[in-house]
Amino acid sequence: MASVGVIMGSDSDFSVMEDALKILRQFDLSYELKVSSAHRTLKRTIQWVEDFEQEGGQIIIAGAGMAAHLPGVIAGATTLPVIGVPIKSGALEGIDALYAIVQMPPGIPVATVGINGARNAALLAVQMLALKEDRLREALQTFRQEMAQQVEAKDNVLQAAHFNNTN
Amino acid sequence: MASVGVIMGSDSDFSVMEDALKILRQFDLSYELKVSSAHRTLKRTIQWVEDFEQEGGQIIIAGAGMAAHLPGVIAGATTLPVIGVPIKSGALEGIDALYAIVQMPPGIPVATVGINGARNAALLAVQMLALKEDRLREALQTFRQEMAQQVEAKDNVLQAAHFNNTN
Amino acid sequence: MASVGVIMGSDSDFSVMEDALKILRQFDLSYELKVSSAHRTLKRTIQWVEDFEQEGGQIIIAGAGMAAHLPGVIAGATTLPVIGVPIKSGALEGIDALYAIVQMPPGIPVATVGINGARNAALLAVQMLALKEDRLREALQTFRQEMAQQVEAKDNVLQAAHFNNTN
Amino acid sequence: MASVGVIMGSDSDFSVMEDALKILRQFDLSYELKVSSAHRTLKRTIQWVEDFEQEGGQIIIAGAGMAAHLPGVIAGATTLPVIGVPIKSGALEGIDALYAIVQMPPGIPVATVGINGARNAALLAVQMLALKEDRLREALQTFRQEMAQQVEAKDNVLQAAHFNNTN
Amino acid sequence: MASVGVIMGSDSDFSVMEDALKILRQFDLSYELKVSSAHRTLKRTIQWVEDFEQEGGQIIIAGAGMAAHLPGVIAGATTLPVIGVPIKSGALEGIDALYAIVQMPPGIPVATVGINGARNAALLAVQMLALKEDRLREALQTFRQEMAQQVEAKDNVLQAAHFNNTN
Amino acid sequence: MASVGVIMGSDSDFSVMEDALKILRQFDLSYELKVSSAHRTLKRTIQWVEDFEQEGGQIIIAGAGMAAHLPGVIAGATTLPVIGVPIKSGALEGIDALYAIVQMPPGIPVATVGINGARNAALLAVQMLALKEDRLREALQTFRQEMAQQVEAKDNVLQAAHFNNTN
Amino acid sequence: MASVGVIMGSDSDFSVMEDALKILRQFDLSYELKVSSAHRTLKRTIQWVEDFEQEGGQIIIAGAGMAAHLPGVIAGATTLPVIGVPIKSGALEGIDALYAIVQMPPGIPVATVGINGARNAALLAVQMLALKEDRLREALQTFRQEMAQQVEAKDNVLQAAHFNNTN
Amino acid sequence: MASVGVIMGSDSDFSVMEDALKILRQFDLSYELKVSSAHRTLKRTIQWVEDFEQEGGQIIIAGAGMAAHLPGVIAGATTLPVIGVPIKSGALEGIDALYAIVQMPPGIPVATVGINGARNAALLAVQMLALKEDRLREALQTFRQEMAQQVEAKDNVLQAAHFNNTN
Repeated sequence: MASVGVIMGSDSDFSVMEDALKILRQFDLSYELKVSSAHRTLKRTIQWVEDFEQEGGQIIIAGAGMAAHLPGVIAGATTLPVIGVPIKSGALEGIDALYAIVQMPPGIPVATVGINGARNAALLAVQMLALKEDRLREALQTFRQEMAQQVEAKDNVLQAAHFNNTN
Repeated sequence: MASVGVIMGSDSDFSVMEDALKILRQFDLSYELKVSSAHRTLKRTIQWVEDFEQEGGQIIIAGAGMAAHLPGVIAGATTLPVIGVPIKSGALEGIDALYAIVQMPPGIPVATVGINGARNAALLAVQMLALKEDRLREALQTFRQEMAQQVEAKDNVLQAAHFNNTN
Repeated sequence: MASVGVIMGSDSDFSVMEDALKILRQFDLSYELKVSSAHRTLKRTIQWVEDFEQEGGQIIIAGAGMAAHLPGVIAGATTLPVIGVPIKSGALEGIDALYAIVQMPPGIPVATVGINGARNAALLAVQMLALKEDRLREALQTFRQEMAQQVEAKDNVLQAAHFNNTN
Repeated sequence: MASVGVIMGSDSDFSVMEDALKILRQFDLSYELKVSSAHRTLKRTIQWVEDFEQEGGQIIIAGAGMAAHLPGVIAGATTLPVIGVPIKSGALEGIDALYAIVQMPPGIPVATVGINGARNAALLAVQMLALKEDRLREALQTFRQEMAQQVEAKDNVLQAAHFNNTN
Repeated sequence: MASVGVIMGSDSDFSVMEDALKILRQFDLSYELKVSSAHRTLKRTIQWVEDFEQEGGQIIIAGAGMAAHLPGVIAGATTLPVIGVPIKSGALEGIDALYAIVQMPPGIPVATVGINGARNAALLAVQMLALKEDRLREALQTFRQEMAQQVEAKDNVLQAAHFNNTN
Repeated sequence: MASVGVIMGSDSDFSVMEDALKILRQFDLSYELKVSSAHRTLKRTIQWVEDFEQEGGQIIIAGAGMAAHLPGVIAGATTLPVIGVPIKSGALEGIDALYAIVQMPPGIPVATVGINGARNAALLAVQMLALKEDRLREALQTFRQEMAQQVEAKDNVLQAAHFNNTN
Repeated sequence: MASVGVIMGSDSDFSVMEDALKILRQFDLSYELKVSSAHRTLKRTIQWVEDFEQEGGQIIIAGAGMAAHLPGVIAGATTLPVIGVPIKSGALEGIDALYAIVQMPPGIPVATVGINGARNAALLAVQMLALKEDRLREALQTFRQEMAQQVEAKDNVLQAAHFNNTN
Repeated sequence: MASVGVIMGSDSDFSVMEDALKILRQFDLSYELKVSSAHRTLKRTIQWVEDFEQEGGQIIIAGAGMAAHLPGVIAGATTLPVIGVPIKSGALEGIDALYAIVQMPPGIPVATVGINGARNAALLAVQMLALKEDRLREALQTFRQEMAQQVEAKDNVLQAAHFNNTN
């Protein structure tokens, strides 16, 4: 029984969406992985959404590029939170996907992250699940502290390297 | 039995989409009119598309604004030609709808017209139907000649008015 | 003890953000309302975030226009889910706010909705809280059914009016 | 006697437009191929359009980059359906071509596909011709089924590979 | 025998293009005025260009909005200098027209001015004709001096008003 | 005594602007070449413009990237026709230069060509000079015919290659 | 002897630039006010800059719209800090002015504020002058405290009004 | 005691921000270098700003990419002048960072330079400090003269090379 469903419109989106899977594993969350299209396999996509919800799935992360309809279509088929990841591809380099995902009409929201922001999509899912799982709240706080420590460590390394070089 | 289905995501789109209906009536084409959403009533939308196709419908014109998924979702649910009309609304004034309609992934085309271009969408439908109805080809040619004559008439009026005023 | 904190950078954002409050009341959710700036009252903003979290607040909805830093700054100050609403204002009409909210760096997500999408921001909050409150899941399903019925009702009205007028 | 005319403004557009030819051959449709410019060889272009129409041609696919006038100029010279393909080239990477093709004034439509969307342009032509050729309708349905099967196959492969790697 | 031809795609463009006519009259230049479309009356447009050139016309100013093909099509039909005026209209407010006019492919230039820049288009025509008419060079220098004096006069008025009000 | 002055803001613009020089040589036009900046050497730039005009120069082609002020500043310093070439450079890839050149305020026009359109800038200069030099008019007509023949030749080559390959 | 020079390209920019003057008076700073154009009165503009610097002027605030060259040209004529204010005007509504001001080439900076950001331009000037005038540092701190208090006051008013209305 | 603080949101910004450090060293200005994030280490960032100001720091240069909040957040935490450098990164290539930095709300200015304009940021800092240090004013004038001489030198080299090659 997976908590998070990670779905993408094409297997070519995997190299971006993989960042989400890494975060989910890091936080010990079970996930489903799915390739299904809002256009080429619409009914199958909706079926998967309904099955996922019925089997106790909690949150769906959907990534798509260009005229990215997948997150919005899924959001229309469930009342679970849907997180949309605009994927950079094609001549417009993700602006089309960003607009097609974030500008949802009133009534059916998609929680949109930045272009290629799969990592943040997964962190958002963790934040949502932390509303009812205390271990995730604590894990998020640890994660934040480690990020902060990394910034400080890099700061020290950079300063040392720079002032060594210039003095 | 309607030849053309005209569908829009919200009844607020009607003032734009009405231009399409006028052209269809002008060319004596029967049409269906439908308000149905890709997000709020997705299954009903797909059902309508399948019914429309089964009852002998030929072409679908779909108008939508913002993250405009309606034309693309319909295009995925039928092999009939789907014409998409991006509708100007919201803060991005139709750019979002244009990108969300025209940038379809390979395999599922939407014939896109300009923002608020409902009139051209209907003319495109007439051109497609003229592939098998000779009366429409002739009607299109007459339509073109009348447009050309209007340009010439306006040219004459404008020139006369201007040179009268300035001489 | 409020579940949702609704914060905006300026009281001029209220006419947009009010849409969120209506949804929260409709779903019987308690909320805090706050005007506080990421620039003019940064420390007070952070203090409010920390207090809100400590007192058991669950989700923060933050609206801001132009160089909209409020949602991102708040997201950096808490591990609660933060939903960002880009507000249309100034010469760039919300594109600046959209980019400034959605394009967060890896590690600190903001769940972004469309420009002026306060209503969807609140619905997203409801969806998140429904992960642990069954009554909200049911209320969301009812809400969806009512939206669907409204689409159908408007469809009937529009069709009747149109075909009455044109026949 | 070709059904579809595929014309481009420059032979440098061929690597994009070739995708259209592949689809046409796959659906056993005869086509003409033409390089002719809206600016450098305008009269020759118009002559070709008129000849193509007179000889029984049905649909024209026109690809062009930058200030892409070719599809619109052709649309003004015929009442056959014209499908426009904006080609990515130059500093604006196809946005200029997209606007120059899709934003046609009322009266003269161009059925526009996405930037570099030659494949979809050809599929759109097949959909139009299927209005009067039943074999094409069936072929389109088969094509769709195969696309759907490919999505499913890729889904299986990706899932298998991923969960093998991570378990 | 007119020196300058001023052509526009629609009589609705006249309120913008009129600025050009005022400048031409101010510099005592004869002009033709024409409404003709690149799409609705293409052959008539080309015929007018050829007639204008044959009768000794020198420069063409062409204004058009949206997918503005008129200047480029004319530039392909003559070797006279063609000045293009992108006209603000429709949802994209002139960006489409600007790109469709300025981004001409190599070999066929259009001298483009700013959106709605009809006044500058006419001044550019005067500058070109001044290459062979000394009276125009002198008139341009007088025009520039008067503009400069107006700036100085407005400067004085503004300063006086402001420092009177604030002291 | 040069007819055309070709000036650029930086020697790094030369690889683009060289296209203009080739055309000028092809049409046997004398030219000056200058590197001078609107910001770093403003007075020297103005001095060069005044000298160029006084020595009988006819037309100035100015290329610049980013906040491209050079063409506009020169246009303010002379009544000779000034042709502006926006150069693709920096993060905005020439959009900034296009806007900074084409959107001149009323009174001081710059004849703008497409991004990196140095070749067209030179052809525009030839068209202007042809207003008083018949040999240039003829040369332009020959140039056009050769371009047309090249299109036809490429058309033949491409068609032959393609139908050989696919049959 | 004025500390700050406030210059604009046209007296129509005054309604925006007036915000800067209010701030300067509020901080008891003397200023000059000037209307002068980078194109129509270039030499006069440069002369004013040189005079302003020689007479002990410290900082220049320059506002301009469209192809806004004024701030950059001034920055090239002085080593005093130049603050640029992009003004919203014309079809592009200030994006052109923003790019034309902020994207300066290396070597000649312009301190750019937001579109129509004259108020912030003046505050920036105060911040710079506070580097050597302690009274301005203190005045800035008071100004900040008052802004913060206003935010708090508005927060209280809004909360009171809202919860009164909804309870 | 450093005059200028140079801070960036991530050590990956260093390759851009290094240009600022070179200029500061060239003008013999002491500087601090800091990596600290507006999101991951917000309080540490504010602490650093307060310390920097208290220890006599004068000006802060802050570089950040994507939803670039660092300069604005710092500007809210000090009344020292803050110079913002939008850094090109991610799918939007710096447009997001530019808008997020320059479009600050009234009251809290950020002096913004062009995308990746770290060199200009440092020169702006030098110009500000020259308000109270005469040696910097002189150094800036020398710097300008050398830049002008480099332009002239490059002009000579380019002209010589070009006319040697083409004659």
